[in-house]
Amino acid sequence: MDLEKFFKAKSVAIVGVSKDPKKVGHVIFRNLLDANFHGKLFLVNPNAYEILNREVYKSLTEIREEIELAVIAVPAKKVLDVIKDCGKRKIKNVVVVSSGFKEIGNEKLELQLKELVTKLKINLIGPNCLGVFDAITKLDTLFLPRYRLKRPSSGGVSFISQSGAIGSAILDLATTENYGISKFVSYGNATTIDESDILEYLSHDKETKVICMYLEGIKDGKKFIQIAKKVTKMKPIIVIKGGLTQEGSKAILSHTGSLAGTEEVYYGAFKQSGIIIAHSLKEMFNYAKILEKSILPKGDRVQIITNGGGYGVLSTDAIIKNNLKMAELSKDTLIKLKKIMPEIVIVGNPMDLVGDATTERYQVAIENCLDDKNSDILLVNLLYQTPLISTDVVDIITELNDLKKKPIIVVSTGGEFTELLKKTLENNNIPCYTFPEEAVNSIKALTDYYLKK
Amino acid sequence: MDLEKFFKAKSVAIVGVSKDPKKVGHVIFRNLLDANFHGKLFLVNPNAYEILNREVYKSLTEIREEIELAVIAVPAKKVLDVIKDCGKRKIKNVVVVSSGFKEIGNEKLELQLKELVTKLKINLIGPNCLGVFDAITKLDTLFLPRYRLKRPSSGGVSFISQSGAIGSAILDLATTENYGISKFVSYGNATTIDESDILEYLSHDKETKVICMYLEGIKDGKKFIQIAKKVTKMKPIIVIKGGLTQEGSKAILSHTGSLAGTEEVYYGAFKQSGIIIAHSLKEMFNYAKILEKSILPKGDRVQIITNGGGYGVLSTDAIIKNNLKMAELSKDTLIKLKKIMPEIVIVGNPMDLVGDATTERYQVAIENCLDDKNSDILLVNLLYQTPLISTDVVDIITELNDLKKKPIIVVSTGGEFTELLKKTLENNNIPCYTFPEEAVNSIKALTDYYLKK
Repeated sequence: MDLEKFFKAKSVAIVGVSKDPKKVGHVIFRNLLDANFHGKLFLVNPNAYEILNREVYKSLTEIREEIELAVIAVPAKKVLDVIKDCGKRKIKNVVVVSSGFKEIGNEKLELQLKELVTKLKINLIGPNCLGVFDAITKLDTLFLPRYRLKRPSSGGVSFISQSGAIGSAILDLATTENYGISKFVSYGNATTIDESDILEYLSHDKETKVICMYLEGIKDGKKFIQIAKKVTKMKPIIVIKGGLTQEGSKAILSHTGSLAGTEEVYYGAFKQSGIIIAHSLKEMFNYAKILEKSILPKGDRVQIITNGGGYGVLSTDAIIKNNLKMAELSKDTLIKLKKIMPEIVIVGNPMDLVGDATTERYQVAIENCLDDKNSDILLVNLLYQTPLISTDVVDIITELNDLKKKPIIVVSTGGEFTELLKKTLENNNIPCYTFPEEAVNSIKALTDYYLKK
Repeated sequence: MDLEKFFKAKSVAIVGVSKDPKKVGHVIFRNLLDANFHGKLFLVNPNAYEILNREVYKSLTEIREEIELAVIAVPAKKVLDVIKDCGKRKIKNVVVVSSGFKEIGNEKLELQLKELVTKLKINLIGPNCLGVFDAITKLDTLFLPRYRLKRPSSGGVSFISQSGAIGSAILDLATTENYGISKFVSYGNATTIDESDILEYLSHDKETKVICMYLEGIKDGKKFIQIAKKVTKMKPIIVIKGGLTQEGSKAILSHTGSLAGTEEVYYGAFKQSGIIIAHSLKEMFNYAKILEKSILPKGDRVQIITNGGGYGVLSTDAIIKNNLKMAELSKDTLIKLKKIMPEIVIVGNPMDLVGDATTERYQVAIENCLDDKNSDILLVNLLYQTPLISTDVVDIITELNDLKKKPIIVVSTGGEFTELLKKTLENNNIPCYTFPEEAVNSIKALTDYYLKK
């Protein structure tokens, strides 16, 4: 199914734009204005002449130009009439954000909607959803004001969320955590377009490098597995599944009316499809970061470089607990490094450049480990609290990472200064983490995905 | 052992202050100046007359006033002479930050130091350490400049770290993560004062509510267990142990020369002593936050309140996976809430106030759950992305928390706006987390500690 226009439409009609700035339709319009959305915007409301100095049409049928996407934000009972207008105007892509369908027991209206869009061959996202967000085109149907929900900058991670709340909270978090987002879809009741359709579309989307999903139920298990199997051969899918416990599953039943299966069934299906399972929202985005930014490792032998002994120890523990391997550098490299490095440096794995480590010491260590055939991945613990580390260490690491010899993952814990340098590294495609444990868990996700592929 | 003067000394001599702003002694002096340390400062350096317009003494013996604490930052081979001067001047508390002892194989010098301070009845922290930091008095021997390592604001968490790097990185992180710190000790080689002595001192320290420890080895296991058993009856101890795997233990051997034991031995000892085990640095500070801020729960029945269905689901899963109980509100409360709340609200557990939840809806929900005898702990998922939540929700929750009826824990995911409101709540003793999973793990630590006590 071609969902391109949901993200790249050049002309969008918003149906149900009120003068009241608190109302859903108005917020969507306002957001598109504030984002400097470059497409054409048409506003529809039978009871208004102009809103924010823009012409308002009585109905879709009044608009003479082509409309690539209609966003419908009218009360549930009026939705079918608007869809009929879409049919008349040959609008093929529609987001219905309105609620008041299946999720509150109104199965009949839901069915009528389904039959109508099927008959009219309309691609429908929703109802009862936040809709879509595209970080590049700025096309955005999220009816949450930008002062509450900041919009993230563009990157390679797309996020499909069955829960609007989780979706919007994560997008907002992405603005401070420096997650680069490509596309976001909250698909609500999935009346026609469901999680598998979106997954399939994103698999062909060049801007999407990694797909994250928050799932509660799956509409069609067979279809999902079939598509997921294909997609995971092209790009990684990370899933967090809500309602894995019986009680969580009951919670889903009461808030969406859908049934969730058992942990065994889901995890079995995910593993069979090559999907990466995340056990928490935090884990999902930790994994997404490394899978988006890092190059392919050739194996799972990790070399630790550190300027804090304790970080070397915790990193080692994490590597062993995650069933990864500690790299053992070749004799040549060891002898060479022992010659170059000051006596106080512990040449081995972890390689402890100790508290007075300089930028130069990091450079020598990283260069030699990159060239040693006995290591596959470099885990660089880099603490910026000591003044001997000059800030150009981020340039050095960026240059070495740009050689694309091996994945380089950086761990830095600290305050504002650390965060600043961390962002610079991340903007240059080096995945950075705050703690060694989360870095190593993420390395495990990376090696599992690439080495099993 | 009375370690009070290490944190509260009113007169401090720094021995080995150079004119060179990069040298350790100078940085320590500069930091104390910049922090407006209120005690008297004496500088000692045989080769300088004045530094930053301050008089410099040739030796400790030249100073006529009382000195409560000496900080020694001279080369290792000169340390013993300075200690002898401390003896002459009857200085009873000494921090030796200098390295060059046991940790580089210089066992003999280490032993001489030990014998000398024992003979002179001097309390010694170090050598080979960062020393101490007190967030209230601003006494601070950390030789890392304040533009690199920001100093955190004061709170109830004290942190003992065998690793200087981990200690300093966490202190720096605390400044942005809003961890309130009381005291910090990096004790290095533990030549006389060891982790158990510091633990015992902190157990009597009124400003310390929670003790966190990063341990690699334990000097005297019997002493540690004996003291820890007593301390955990007064206040919680959270430990992260480095070197639990054989490989991690080898890493310790190479960087500190000490032997670490097996996971079973350590975890057995920790559990026997009532110590809370953290499996990552992140977990340690998640646990510390709830144990510092929250009141005692009376049981482990958790009531979830949320404005995002997905958050209710993930919270439920986490509660069940952590062997906590889902609270079941009394019939009276359920009937009452169903009457007051709009029909769309799902009254139960999770209680889903849904996307258009207002501050008032939260107030009613929390008030009624606090008064219901069938719940012990309130987990409030509060997403600020929707405009109907007014910012005074933080005042409402603060007022309800101040009644001290039950622990209230808040989960909010988001960007700057969310972080701002989160900090306000945390400053009012409400533990806040970004994700439901980490909040629930922390609730588990809280109930384990209080209910087993």
